[in-house]
Parts: sequence; structure tokens; C-alpha cells
Amino acid sequence: MIIFLKNNCENNELEKLKNTIKSMNLKFKLYNHGERNIIELIGEDRYFSKERFETFTCVEKVVKILKPYYLVSKEYKNETIIKFNDFEIKNNNFTIIAGPCSIEDRDMTFEIAHFLKENGIKIMRGGAFKPRTSPYSFQGNGMKALEYLKEASEKYNLLTVSEAVGIDVLKEIKNYVDIVQVGSRNSQNFELLKNLGSINKPVLLKRGFMNTIEEFLQSAEYIALRGNKNIILCERGIRTFENQTRNTLDISAFPLIKLNSNLPIISDPSHAAGRRDIIPTLAKASMASGANGIIVEIHPNPEKALSDGKQSLNFKEFQSMVKELINLSSALNIKIN
Amino acid sequence: MIIFLKNNCENNELEKLKNTIKSMNLKFKLYNHGERNIIELIGEDRYFSKERFETFTCVEKVVKILKPYYLVSKEYKNETIIKFNDFEIKNNNFTIIAGPCSIEDRDMTFEIAHFLKENGIKIMRGGAFKPRTSPYSFQGNGMKALEYLKEASEKYNLLTVSEAVGIDVLKEIKNYVDIVQVGSRNSQNFELLKNLGSINKPVLLKRGFMNTIEEFLQSAEYIALRGNKNIILCERGIRTFENQTRNTLDISAFPLIKLNSNLPIISDPSHAAGRRDIIPTLAKASMASGANGIIVEIHPNPEKALSDGKQSLNFKEFQSMVKELINLSSALNIKIN
Amino acid sequence: MIIFLKNNCENNELEKLKNTIKSMNLKFKLYNHGERNIIELIGEDRYFSKERFETFTCVEKVVKILKPYYLVSKEYKNETIIKFNDFEIKNNNFTIIAGPCSIEDRDMTFEIAHFLKENGIKIMRGGAFKPRTSPYSFQGNGMKALEYLKEASEKYNLLTVSEAVGIDVLKEIKNYVDIVQVGSRNSQNFELLKNLGSINKPVLLKRGFMNTIEEFLQSAEYIALRGNKNIILCERGIRTFENQTRNTLDISAFPLIKLNSNLPIISDPSHAAGRRDIIPTLAKASMASGANGIIVEIHPNPEKALSDGKQSLNFKEFQSMVKELINLSSALNIKIN
Amino acid sequence: MIIFLKNNCENNELEKLKNTIKSMNLKFKLYNHGERNIIELIGEDRYFSKERFETFTCVEKVVKILKPYYLVSKEYKNETIIKFNDFEIKNNNFTIIAGPCSIEDRDMTFEIAHFLKENGIKIMRGGAFKPRTSPYSFQGNGMKALEYLKEASEKYNLLTVSEAVGIDVLKEIKNYVDIVQVGSRNSQNFELLKNLGSINKPVLLKRGFMNTIEEFLQSAEYIALRGNKNIILCERGIRTFENQTRNTLDISAFPLIKLNSNLPIISDPSHAAGRRDIIPTLAKASMASGANGIIVEIHPNPEKALSDGKQSLNFKEFQSMVKELINLSSALNIKIN
Repeated sequence: MIIFLKNNCENNELEKLKNTIKSMNLKFKLYNHGERNIIELIGEDRYFSKERFETFTCVEKVVKILKPYYLVSKEYKNETIIKFNDFEIKNNNFTIIAGPCSIEDRDMTFEIAHFLKENGIKIMRGGAFKPRTSPYSFQGNGMKALEYLKEASEKYNLLTVSEAVGIDVLKEIKNYVDIVQVGSRNSQNFELLKNLGSINKPVLLKRGFMNTIEEFLQSAEYIALRGNKNIILCERGIRTFENQTRNTLDISAFPLIKLNSNLPIISDPSHAAGRRDIIPTLAKASMASGANGIIVEIHPNPEKALSDGKQSLNFKEFQSMVKELINLSSALNIKIN
Repeated sequence: MIIFLKNNCENNELEKLKNTIKSMNLKFKLYNHGERNIIELIGEDRYFSKERFETFTCVEKVVKILKPYYLVSKEYKNETIIKFNDFEIKNNNFTIIAGPCSIEDRDMTFEIAHFLKENGIKIMRGGAFKPRTSPYSFQGNGMKALEYLKEASEKYNLLTVSEAVGIDVLKEIKNYVDIVQVGSRNSQNFELLKNLGSINKPVLLKRGFMNTIEEFLQSAEYIALRGNKNIILCERGIRTFENQTRNTLDISAFPLIKLNSNLPIISDPSHAAGRRDIIPTLAKASMASGANGIIVEIHPNPEKALSDGKQSLNFKEFQSMVKELINLSSALNIKIN
Repeated sequence: MIIFLKNNCENNELEKLKNTIKSMNLKFKLYNHGERNIIELIGEDRYFSKERFETFTCVEKVVKILKPYYLVSKEYKNETIIKFNDFEIKNNNFTIIAGPCSIEDRDMTFEIAHFLKENGIKIMRGGAFKPRTSPYSFQGNGMKALEYLKEASEKYNLLTVSEAVGIDVLKEIKNYVDIVQVGSRNSQNFELLKNLGSINKPVLLKRGFMNTIEEFLQSAEYIALRGNKNIILCERGIRTFENQTRNTLDISAFPLIKLNSNLPIISDPSHAAGRRDIIPTLAKASMASGANGIIVEIHPNPEKALSDGKQSLNFKEFQSMVKELINLSSALNIKIN
Repeated sequence: MIIFLKNNCENNELEKLKNTIKSMNLKFKLYNHGERNIIELIGEDRYFSKERFETFTCVEKVVKILKPYYLVSKEYKNETIIKFNDFEIKNNNFTIIAGPCSIEDRDMTFEIAHFLKENGIKIMRGGAFKPRTSPYSFQGNGMKALEYLKEASEKYNLLTVSEAVGIDVLKEIKNYVDIVQVGSRNSQNFELLKNLGSINKPVLLKRGFMNTIEEFLQSAEYIALRGNKNIILCERGIRTFENQTRNTLDISAFPLIKLNSNLPIISDPSHAAGRRDIIPTLAKASMASGANGIIVEIHPNPEKALSDGKQSLNFKEFQSMVKELINLSSALNIKIN
């Protein structure tokens, strides 16, 4: 950390700053630049806040060199591979996760599971507890939905993912699914993140729609720090002024995460677009950008969906998209899971 | 709700749509506008999602007339007054809440409580559990902090507010403080909101820095729907591209909330600005805009604060701001609490 | 246009509204919906402003059905093809435009032109007049740069594109280049757009970094309306809160423009990213999303560039990117220009 | 400027960097920080771009200490006062500018001028050339409007302000009005700004709705650098995700500009709000925040306005707002102009 002092900072002010640094057990060097001084903190200052020093009246600016995360960074490890029996979520693989926004009833759950199996898809998503902006919107079928999902996935030998909207739900859900999802609105629910750090299932962590990539990686660090390093990141669009899409898919997040983090990252084109017609295009763009997979909403009859019907593909649209992705994957030397 | 159909929508498509509406027990009227048809849903459709109909291929657009909240709206009630023994948070009153970002130790807690009492302030804020972006930042002193806060507030006869970062914390905190705060990152933590609906303490609900005013009011509706209508809204800045402030205080939120909601709304200039120098100005602007109060961070020695020192006023700065606010209040016919 | 009236709108208010509509020579129908009335305007109301009616106190909301542009829409024409002697910018083609941010001197201009020719690139970009945020930044070499560009392009038989920063520059530049560019900060400089409507060269119109897709198409409509329908749109990133990239490439813009407009659209990954390392990835994502080409900044020695060096590819990086694009194009049935 | 090098930067890379610095006639000091080196550039580097150095592969980060503007800064001068015969735009004064969005006809122009005179307002705004998002919207009455404005203002002894949408219009308009306005969409039209630098009338420069405060001040610097230092800044709202207002008034801009710039700044609550009902509240908030005035749209009959009727106050609303402002001004020791 480098502390830039203002011109002509008075001696007693400088002494106060030095004493504070000493009281934190940090070493430092003072560089004299004419009227201006610069202080470099020496040692492990990764976890010290810039703001701690910016409050001193004689401090102009503080610059951190180190990144505010470590366990999820490339410096800690080159790549985290999420392993299941028959396949892996990792670089040069592209994993397709699909299923309904919410598990509406037993029949549709089995219908979708059967469809996925027939089409070679290995992970099924299905919402049981739904976080909804309005208290009057459909909130999901809860435990009953989890049971349907478990039953159907066992019959068709599928892995499953569903969202834990809070700690109470987490306690239950981790016994029913193979991957626990954290939704966009909970991406900075730090209490939930801490609890996810001690489960022994992979976590699918969605980016908050108003979080920077750096904040996103710090949320992942919360989980990793408690011991669970099996984290799959998911870019699902950020809030911008553009209103023809529900959110703006931040396509740059894929290469940037790959440069900085050891974690796999997948794309959620359904929530980014919020409209069915451009989902296949966004899926292809995600693959071309280095995403390790996608999670998409499908429904046998989107017009009758209880939630998110507008952004769910029907079976035919989904098959057509998969075909396009397979075609693309060969040009990119990617294996589709 | 009004459903605009596309030109030349085919008959079987139209029949499917009609049947869906009927299956929802809604009545409707079909208006023939040349090539285009328009359907009006009749009855209480406030809680039906537009998206339910937007998925039909022959639907062009759906428009809702009613607002997606009710209990917190002006239509339900003109004004919600939050009453304590000796004063009320309400229109034409301006309540000043102040205290440290986090309760660092017993001494500073009493020092601040004593200062507030001497300056006529009646509500003390103090963080015990801190939601921090980085897992390596100071996370607050927890239960010990709540005990100091309770002890100090009893000695100086102050009301208190502190944040519940999750359901577990809520169970404890509601026994220690007079007002339970929901932070910006938890503003759409719906599980937490539901639990706040059944406590018998007022809730101070901060606007998510990524939420529209309409989403903000829906979060409040979550709490009200479970029975707790004692909600104080708090505007604390939204995320924008401007980078000289931590967030952009949305000054328009005050008059807009007053037009649409029965709830009081206060301002948090500390988190909006993220810098000490413009806090008093933002406080005055908030008062001039109809805010019912402010919540500000103060510290006896901001340079030594363990968190948010950069945006904490020292005692002298706080007194000077209060003086300016008193001066302004007389011109606006507002009583300072 | 549909005008929704408020409940119990009084008769004299309704009469005022009706008279206004009549005075605009529009016909209308009044639909009685119980307490609420709805008025449909009949005829060509595409170019009437909603706000014209929203000011009436008894109007709740006004909805337009028609889009605010026409000549650049799919309804006017299915596809606009930009033709040059030896190739076309159109669907299923992918045109690569490359060159320096600014034409620094004669030697580098010829060096780059030679490099492009050798690598099969047919359009060279080169800045002569540079719009810079700071008046103290390098503003380009002006007319001399245009001369170098013309000379080099003639020698190597390349087409050229350069930016018109204003009407004065436009008068000159149209005699020197084959395509006239409008920069992002001028995307709503309507006086400039009007003047571009009467030149007989294609226009490369960049999206304003703070403009919606609908505003972008209206800017194009300004040009088309004056008679010049040879417009190439260019998505170059929008301003968001994410700060690891200069702007956020709005990848959804490609499929959305293709759905709504007859114009070709290319991608500018250099300005979107603002950093060299992810440009090739964004180029591939753009191709996979249906973009009709890219415009990229290259420099023989980016470290010595007078502007935008940070986001310029060197020759080797450029060649490697082109190779990847060629590889990808076969899987997508796209022909690289 | 401080250049942070990466760890273990190789010697030949370091030599390249040093030579570049020398070739720019800058002096520097190299500080050895263990594995990492830091270079400080010495001398007047205010106008050198950071990016010039960020392109070197061994450079980690570059930090500028100096601000990228000077003539409009507090360091150049403490306060710029805009003087007219009978009053001044300056601190502790609050200037009210009002008038129609566009000059529709001769009668309304005289009606408004008369109204302003009677109410003690000294500056009249009136649009003649209107920048509109859609080419089909009303574009203003042009020269005829300027003539009406001049005639009316002379009769009633008012100062006037109108917008120059481009260089051609500027040539005319500067002969008709007392203050030349630059609109939000032209705030980075650098060719126009350069031309404004050589006129001898004050310029009212609106902040681009997509510009940071620092960019805004650099736009002002463009004008000042060519010799015209009579600039009035105007905050008119920035684009955010909130959709109940047309833009979000950035109330923090007033104190921040006052801290950093010598220029006066006024507020445009009409364009920020885009709706009539909250304009008076935003005007009061602006005054409380240190704004030096407001510019508001009024219309004798907003329901009939050809443009912006939705955000224009009628005469009665305007008078009521002025009364509130007068009331507030006494508490703030501000003189209303």
C-alpha cells in the first residue's frame, strides 16, 4: 500500500499517521519527494483497508497494489476443477445446465428430466424457493418441489442445482441437491456466504446485478475462506440504462475472470436477456468468450409458466440452441458436457 | 391490466390466451381495433405478473395500471407515524440519528452516548454486526457491541438502532435495540424481510444501492404484509458512473416517496457521499427535499475508526451541521427532533 | 397511440383533451371501461410525442405502439448492404477494419497500410482529428494525417475510414476517405447527423456510450431521413459501474439490432475494452453474436502510441486474432472479408 | 505522476521506459522498493496522459496527482463572477432563469416576458433550435424564434439565454442572446466548445448526462483555454437505472464543484426530473446545496406546449416555487437575483 501525502503536511500530523501505522504492527518507509512525502507500507497489508489511512487530513490518496482476494485468485492456484463422477466443470469443457425456473408440479418435473436425459444434458436446475421482487408473486413450491426434483433426478440419473434463498433453506436444500445456488440478490448476503463455506457441496454463485467483478470475487472469497473452495461463478447480467434487455450480459467478465481467478465461470443468458429471442445468441457469445458453460431456463410450455415464462426456451428452441453450440464447440476445441 | 395483441393474431392463438385468462378466474373484455385487438382484464389483477401474458406469441405488450404495492401506499393510508414515548418520526418533524459506524469498545460507546445526550439527540446508531465487501475487513464486535450499546443508551436515555445482517442476528438484536436496521445489501433479502414482518419493533429499511424506488417499496411491502407496518425508509445513495462520491444520493426519492407512500423516509448522507466534506450539505438538501430525518456516522476520532472513518464526522463537525439544520428548519416550518 | 385516462376524469377536462386531438388533425376512438376511459388515436401518429398528452391532468399514461424510427427499420426494408467494388458489408460476411488510433506520421501510416495489405485486410481506419476529453491531450495531426492516409491507401489499394468531429471537418474529410465515422460523443450531435444525410459516402455511426439502442437507431434515422441510407452501425460499449473495462460491450445489441433494423452493425472491441488483453476474445464473441465485422486499433509499437496505446494490438497480436476469427467463421458459415 | 512497476521488471524493459520519458523532456526519479520499483515524473506532467505509460508491459499502474484541468480550478482563481449591469451570478446569490422550452410564437413569447418582468425575474430562457432525439420531433422555430426572443427581452429589459446546437447556429445566436447555452448532448462536442472559447458572451454549459464531474470540468476547460472564462456550469441530472425521473439530479455535484472549481454552478430541475410535480422540491434542494441558481421551464399552458410540456411549470406553480425559494433564502443568507 502506498500513501501519498499532501504538500506541506505538518510534522505533528505526520507523527500521528506514523504512530497509527506502528500501532497496527506494520513497517513502513518514508520517501521524501520535495514538498510531498510518500509512505510505503511493508509486509502483508492485503487485508488492511485504504480508508483507514484516507481519513488523515494530510493524506492525499492511498493506492493498494495487492488484490483484495487470494484463495480464489490465480496466485493461489491455477485452476479449480469441479468434479462429479462422470464429468468435470473446467476449462475447455462447456457444461449445459437446464431446467424450469420453478418446479411447478410433479408431472412437469419428470417431463423435463426425461427430456434432458434424452438430450444428453447432465445437470438439471429447478427453483423450489423463489426470491421475488413482489411479495405477491409466486414464491415457489418449497419442500415439495425439492422432493420432486430429487425423485426425478434419481430416476433419470441427473445432477441437480437449486437456490438457497437463506440459511434456513440452505439447511434443507443441501440434502436434496448436488449444487447449491446463490441468487443475484443474495450475492452480498454475507451471512449466507459464510454458511456456504462449511457445506460439502459445490456452490453456484451468481454475480450481483450491481456488483463489480472485484466485489464478485470477494463474495466468492467469503465462501472459500470458510473451507469450501468448490465454487462455480455465474455471470448473469448487470443493471444498466439499456431497457430492451432485463440486464446487460457483461461478456468481458468471462475473459477477465479467467485472467484473475482460478474458478470456473458459466453464463446465465436467460436472466441477462429476460427475453427468449436472443438467448441462443448470448449462449454462443458466452462460449466464444471462454465461459465454461451455461445455465438456461426451459419449460415444456413457456406460455403457461408460473414464473419467468418470458425468458424460458421451449424444448424445440433448446434443442436448436444445443445444436448450434455443438457446431461452435468444434471450432473452439471445446468439449460439450 | 391491458394486453395489446399483435396485428393479425391468429384465432387459435387468441383462444389459447382467452383460456389461460379464464383458468385464472379473471374476467376480461376484448376490444376490436381494426387489425389489432386489445384485451382488458377486469377485477383485482394487482398481483398478477405481466410476464404471465407477455410470453404468448401474439402479445405485443402488457401494461399494468395498478401499482405493485398497497399496504405502504398512499391509497391504503395517508401517513404512517412512528411513535416513541417522547417523540414521533413523521412529516414536518426531522429526526437526527447519529452514532459510530461500529461500536468499537465500551469507552467510545459511552463517550458518544454522552455527547449525543448533551446535544439533544434522541436516537443512537451503532453497528455490532457489519456486512463488509471483503471477508478480511473488520466484521464488528457482535454481541459484546450490542451490550455496550444497550448499557450506554440506558444510562443516557437514548433510543437505539443497529443492523440485523441475517435471521440469526435478528433473533438476538431485537432484544437489544429499539429499531432494527436492514442494510443496503440486504434490501432484497426476502427471507430476512419476511422475518422482520413479525417483530414488534420498527424497522429502518435502507434502499438497495441497485434498486429502483418501486422495488424499494415492494421490499417494504414484504415487511408490512406480515403485519409490521412500522417501517422507516432510508435513501442512502444509488450506484452510478460518478466516482467522486461512493454513491449518488437520489434526492428525488424524497418527494417521490412522499407522493406514493405512507411511510416516513430519512436520508443517510454518510453512505451516499462516502466522504466527510459534503455530508452537512447533503443533510441540508435532504431536509429541503422533505426527508423526515437523517442518520449520520460520527466518531470522536475518525482517523482512528476501525471502519468508515473516511465518512464519519467528528464531534465539532456534527455540532456545526446540527446548527445549520436548526437554522434551515425554521424557514421550512419543520421541528427538529 | 393509446391514452389511458384516470378514474373519474371530469367532462370539461375530457373535452379539452378531445379538442387538442382534433386540433392536431388526428382521429380517435373513445372506449368506455367503467370508471376509466381509454382513447385510441387513429392514423399516422408515429411522429407525435407521448408527452404531448401526458401533460393533461386527467391522463394516467400514454403508450405508443409504433417504433420511433422507420427508414432504418426492418419494416422499411429487410437488409441494407454496403457495397464497395470488391466486397460488401452484409449479413454472413464479417469485415475487419483495422488501423492506428491516430495517424502519427507518414512512415507509420505506410507501415500499417503495407501490413494490412499483406494480411488481406481491405479497410484501414486512421484518426486525423481526435475528440479528446482533455484539451491538453493530443488532438490528432489533422489535414496532414488525411493526406498520409489517402496516399498510403491508394498505394496499397485500401478503403479508408476516419472520424468527422464536426461539420467543418466533415467538409474536408469526405474528400479524403471512403467511409466517414461519427464518434461516440457525437452520436447525438444532431447538426452533424443532418449534414451526413446529404453526403454520398457511407457513414460509420458509433453508438453513444450512454445511449439506448432505441436512441441509437433514431440517430441513424436522422441520417437516413436526409437521404443517405448507407449507414454502418457500430457497438462500442456503454458506460456502466464496472471499472475493469473502459466500457461494457453490450453484446445483446447485435441480435437486437438484427431483429429491428435493416442496417449492418459491427463491433469496436478496442474502445469497449480499453485494454489490449481481452480484445481478441471480445472480437470472437461479437462474431458469434451476429456482428457484421469489427473495427480494431493496431499499432506497430503500442508502447509508443500518442493515443490509445493501452488498447492497441501490435501486429503479432492482430494476426493471431485474425487466425482465431477465421477458425470460428467456418463453424458459423460466415465469410471473412 | 507516479509509475508503479511490476515485480522483477527486466532491465531492458526498464531502459525502454526510461528512454521514452527522456524523449518527452521529463525528469524522473527511480525509487527502489525491494523487488518493485517506482518512478516519479518530475515537472509539469499535468497534461501528459497516464495511458502513455500504462502500455509498457512492465508497468503495473500509473497514478496522477494533479487534476486534469487548471483554468477552471480553485488553484487558478478562487471565484469567477459573471457580471451583468444590474446583477451578478456568484456565491451567496441565487439567480432564477425561466422561460419556455421552445419559443412557439410571438404572443406566448411576449406573454412570458411580461410575466417574468412582473415577477422580478431578470433572465429569460427560450429555445430556438432544439436538439431532439427523434428527427420527427419538433425542432424549434429557429431564427424567427430568436427574433421574437430579442424583441420581447428588449421591451421588458430582460437578459436572455438560448442554446447553440452547433457551430452554424452559434454564429447567429451570439448576436441575439446574452448567454449562449450548450446542451447536455453537446457537452463533449469539442469543436463547438472550442468555438465558444472565442466569443465574448458568457456560456451556460450543461453537464452531459453521461459525464463525470471531472469530465464536465474538462469540457469547461476547453472553453476557458481559448480565452472565454465566463462560464456558468449547470447540473441537469445524470442517467441512472431509476426510471421514475427522466434523470437523477446529482445533488452532490454542487458542493463538489464548489470545492474544486472557481466557476458558478446552477441547477436545471426541469430536465433532471422530467416531471412537473417535484421541480419545486428539487429547486429548494439545489439552493440548500449551494447552487448559484436554477434554470426552469415554464409555459402559460403546459398542456399545449409543443415540447417538454410534461416538465414545464405553469405561471401559478412558478410563483409558488419562487415564494418558497425566497423563504428558504433568508435562512441560508442568500440573496435572490
